[in-house]
Amino acid sequence: MLRVGYPAAINADLLRGFPDGIDLIPLSDKLDHDVEIDVWIPDFYPKRAIRTWPHLHGVKLVLSMLAGTEWIPGTVGPHVTICNAHGAHNVPTAEWTLAAILAMLRYFPLYLDIQKSGEWKRRFEAATLYAQLHGGGQELYPPVLAEELTGKTVLLVGYGAIGKEIERMLAPFDVELIRVARSARTDPKVQAVSELDGLLPRAEVVILILPETAESRGLIGAPQLALMRQGALLVNAARGPIVDTDALVAALRSGRIRAALDVTNPEPLPEGHPLWSCPNLLITPHVGASTPQFTPRALQVVTGELRRYMKGEPLKNVVQAAIPE
Amino acid sequence: MLRVGYPAAINADLLRGFPDGIDLIPLSDKLDHDVEIDVWIPDFYPKRAIRTWPHLHGVKLVLSMLAGTEWIPGTVGPHVTICNAHGAHNVPTAEWTLAAILAMLRYFPLYLDIQKSGEWKRRFEAATLYAQLHGGGQELYPPVLAEELTGKTVLLVGYGAIGKEIERMLAPFDVELIRVARSARTDPKVQAVSELDGLLPRAEVVILILPETAESRGLIGAPQLALMRQGALLVNAARGPIVDTDALVAALRSGRIRAALDVTNPEPLPEGHPLWSCPNLLITPHVGASTPQFTPRALQVVTGELRRYMKGEPLKNVVQAAIPE
Repeated sequence: MLRVGYPAAINADLLRGFPDGIDLIPLSDKLDHDVEIDVWIPDFYPKRAIRTWPHLHGVKLVLSMLAGTEWIPGTVGPHVTICNAHGAHNVPTAEWTLAAILAMLRYFPLYLDIQKSGEWKRRFEAATLYAQLHGGGQELYPPVLAEELTGKTVLLVGYGAIGKEIERMLAPFDVELIRVARSARTDPKVQAVSELDGLLPRAEVVILILPETAESRGLIGAPQLALMRQGALLVNAARGPIVDTDALVAALRSGRIRAALDVTNPEPLPEGHPLWSCPNLLITPHVGASTPQFTPRALQVVTGELRRYMKGEPLKNVVQAAIPE
Repeated sequence: MLRVGYPAAINADLLRGFPDGIDLIPLSDKLDHDVEIDVWIPDFYPKRAIRTWPHLHGVKLVLSMLAGTEWIPGTVGPHVTICNAHGAHNVPTAEWTLAAILAMLRYFPLYLDIQKSGEWKRRFEAATLYAQLHGGGQELYPPVLAEELTGKTVLLVGYGAIGKEIERMLAPFDVELIRVARSARTDPKVQAVSELDGLLPRAEVVILILPETAESRGLIGAPQLALMRQGALLVNAARGPIVDTDALVAALRSGRIRAALDVTNPEPLPEGHPLWSCPNLLITPHVGASTPQFTPRALQVVTGELRRYMKGEPLKNVVQAAIPE
């Protein structure tokens, strides 16, 4: 029997689709004894998973339920194969991205503030906000109280499964989409990340949806933020360390850009951190993918890999192939 | 020369597309003398337009820059033709609708509150909210911190130009769409509003985007709100009086449903009104269409009608045909 360790917190009903011939081992996040398993499905929370690892023996394959696996190689070492849950995040993360863009262009943070104050007359603060962000608009009647996504230029930094899903959800808005990924390719046109600085000044919305790697850490620093258009929106649906937090705080405070973040650096963002109180900013505390549909979908991906592994077929979502010891 | 009166607040540059042979008469919203005009383009704000009307003489045609013209027939009487700006609101109002649905399903009001408090740990309040709204979810790991639009059942009440635009923007989310309009039709299937009560229990999101008429006023009262599913979202992008405000306040306070409103009744919503402080509610103060692109687009529609009128061709967007005196 193949021994598969999984987080005990997961509802066992959700594992019913797993193939036969598996010995399922629930792993408490407070595991205090050693366990022999062949395949490890780590907890969603890296801290808990890292705490569990020293008690695990015999692990040959790690099947993550997340797309981001940045903590795993350093924890399990090079002699273990690691697969991510490619595809499981597509829908919820792309939806969060659309929600964040539309909410910011529609000034929902301001309107929720107005709603709390209970003063309808404060709506004209939105016209002031538009003028501050874009240096104009006062000549328009009626006053500008919201912005449209339709027709905007959107720079998509990262063109993996989630990036493509974001593109699909952007389609009805007839945006001009500029795609960037590690390496350039065609059909559709994707430009290399080395071209980023030249592309940033064109975009009204910049979406980050690329993996955290040694190359992507700090990709958006002070020079890149300075290249963004006045009033442009930076959306980080990827990982906090891709953006230089101090530079972002400065850019937000100066009123040059606005931002929507589902991820931050550090994370969790501590109380009193300057990011919490920056203007023109929406923070959601890393919740983009945490929908009711997420765990079942991630386990479907895991199930597929398990079946292939048991049949000796090639795995689909390998992010690290084991180096023999 | 055809004499066309327009709101003086509109930037004259935007009128350059008007046909030749027109005498353009700017009308102050504090007009204090009588003016002879043939065609009237009323102010966006009904109060200002209604104040102007007694000074206008000779008006044969009213070209509204808005889709909703409910105040005009009662003001100008039956001997004037009235056209609306059919199509001008499609994009901004449909975008507001998508923004409001996604923001509510993603708990942005809660997360903006958490952001203000500066406590990342409060994110688990979202899991509590999900359990309160839907009576479950605690069995899921990781906890539910957001909801998806994808796969939901959406009831679209109103299937005119804006309703169709909303359908187009909903397409990537693979929702089950139920369409309702005044009268039933096929291809696509649209059900009669008389069927509404039977359809309400099926929907997780109910969108109101129908004109305000004697029949639609109060369409959503206490019985209809009681037919909605526990935790369902009511979105009003149409007109405030379509919903019974007292019944809505009661339904929100009881935690049965949630709502997003760009329009209210009364409007403006006065200070201290109970709606301001209802839970699970997003109010934006009638800003859905007020984007920078709106006035130019509305004037394009007006220009088309003016050209047809001057050539003696049939008008396209007649909402009231003049009865000869």
